[in-house]
Amino acid sequence: MSLLVVGSVALDSIFTPFGETADALGGSAVYFSVAGALLHPVQVVGVVGSDYPVAELDRLAARGIDWSGVERVSGESFRWKGKYSYDLQSRETLETRLGVFATFQPKLPEASRSAEFVFLGNIDPELQLAVLEQIRRPRLVACDTMNYWIQSRKPALMELLGRVDLLMVNDGEARELSGDWNIHRAARWILAHGPKRVVIKQGEHGALLMDGARTFYVPAFPLEEVFDPTGAGDAFAGGFMGYLAAAGSTGEDDLRRAMIYGATMGSYAVEQFGIRGFDTVTRADVEKRARAFHDLTQVMLTEPAP
Amino acid sequence: MSLLVVGSVALDSIFTPFGETADALGGSAVYFSVAGALLHPVQVVGVVGSDYPVAELDRLAARGIDWSGVERVSGESFRWKGKYSYDLQSRETLETRLGVFATFQPKLPEASRSAEFVFLGNIDPELQLAVLEQIRRPRLVACDTMNYWIQSRKPALMELLGRVDLLMVNDGEARELSGDWNIHRAARWILAHGPKRVVIKQGEHGALLMDGARTFYVPAFPLEEVFDPTGAGDAFAGGFMGYLAAAGSTGEDDLRRAMIYGATMGSYAVEQFGIRGFDTVTRADVEKRARAFHDLTQVMLTEPAP
Repeated sequence: MSLLVVGSVALDSIFTPFGETADALGGSAVYFSVAGALLHPVQVVGVVGSDYPVAELDRLAARGIDWSGVERVSGESFRWKGKYSYDLQSRETLETRLGVFATFQPKLPEASRSAEFVFLGNIDPELQLAVLEQIRRPRLVACDTMNYWIQSRKPALMELLGRVDLLMVNDGEARELSGDWNIHRAARWILAHGPKRVVIKQGEHGALLMDGARTFYVPAFPLEEVFDPTGAGDAFAGGFMGYLAAAGSTGEDDLRRAMIYGATMGSYAVEQFGIRGFDTVTRADVEKRARAFHDLTQVMLTEPAP
Repeated sequence: MSLLVVGSVALDSIFTPFGETADALGGSAVYFSVAGALLHPVQVVGVVGSDYPVAELDRLAARGIDWSGVERVSGESFRWKGKYSYDLQSRETLETRLGVFATFQPKLPEASRSAEFVFLGNIDPELQLAVLEQIRRPRLVACDTMNYWIQSRKPALMELLGRVDLLMVNDGEARELSGDWNIHRAARWILAHGPKRVVIKQGEHGALLMDGARTFYVPAFPLEEVFDPTGAGDAFAGGFMGYLAAAGSTGEDDLRRAMIYGATMGSYAVEQFGIRGFDTVTRADVEKRARAFHDLTQVMLTEPAP
């Protein structure tokens, strides 16, 4: 089943206590694809400026990423510069330059219009809606957003919520969107405003999948070294959607398994700077870590307890 | 198998955004026992002053709590007064009065000296050691501690660590004890200093069980209303140890199941003020919630993924 992501294709400059990078490949669509493509081919829709190192994208195409939906236009690429606190628990955005994204009007290639699994990465909800309009009959549409759009594009975002199957956000975004600090009430608020399911990512504390009736929880991998949290949420989304597209399923058990693959990809993302955490990861590595993840929580209950 | 707890039997005054209580039954041994006794009879060792409402303890005896090891001496009972922040994420100790605990010298009743499952609640590590000296052949000894003892009784605490099977602390205590902010490295540090296993409680983010080879994770219950976090950690310990004593086992799978029962008891503790969360809980309720907990994380992985 075809898998499509729309999102930013950016150049990131990141400062952490462990080092820094300048103008490295980043953006939601890039993290999503390098993670997702480990499970299923990914089509990307986005835009880059004339300064983008497209040869690096082309090199990634061999992993199963189709960049033909990424427009190349004259102007400056999207750039993000951020700095993390010493414990990596918080970060400060030093600079955001939208560049060619400021005037981006997504036009999906014909092949992408029949995508069945669609992830609307964190961009202006107006653009997310414009993408959705062009897709014929998706089986599952998931979207991300962030505080900037919650504050500045609430009406468009609420319209979008009514048209997606799943919202995938982090805990702070869920709180801000719903106006409720309790994460479970926040999830219920979101479910009451459109999506049938919500995934709330909690960084080092794992992630939750909720529908109206059940909650599924996946922890974060017990890592002793974390270098760069950038992109972990998008890598999670890539693993989650990549698993579902590969399974060709939106069933409850597959959604739970997709959470484990999402968390697996998130754990690779944080182990190195930028997308480097994925450079040497094989499909066999993914399976091994997904099983290690699974072991973190599994036990049979006796019936009844002694 | 007999289950013994030594810890504080206190009077708590608690302020939360949702209300307050004054001089309510509290203390680590009390929370431990009301939770643990839902799974297995509990013997308590501790001390109360002449001002303690012992009739309330006697009333709880019907639940399977043996208070005969609690000395009644003249003087003031241990009192704690605390205030929580509006989101219940942090608390401030307004007052601690040790009272009769300041001069407490634990003397175990003969029956308690043959206890097989022993929990050394959060008191001076010198007292925890003094209790341990009096126990003949325990099968599993677990202990708790807190920042106050880490700062003021480090040598005694380190001696204690060398003599217990399991340390059960919260994340902040694990970090302070080890001097390492990464929780997984902190756990490894603890394992290198004595205990074969460590449980790290993370409040609303669940709890981890680690030995040298494996990690098990249990989330917190997805509660939409939390009223009072006081005693949740001790209730967790009561559920954990109560399950093991009932199972008569220290096997890996039973330890994992014990984590689920611990988390179950923690969730009851936070739903009401003080120990009231346990007032109407039946054994059948416990089983039902433990199963709901179990469902939060369980899924079979296909082999291999599609």
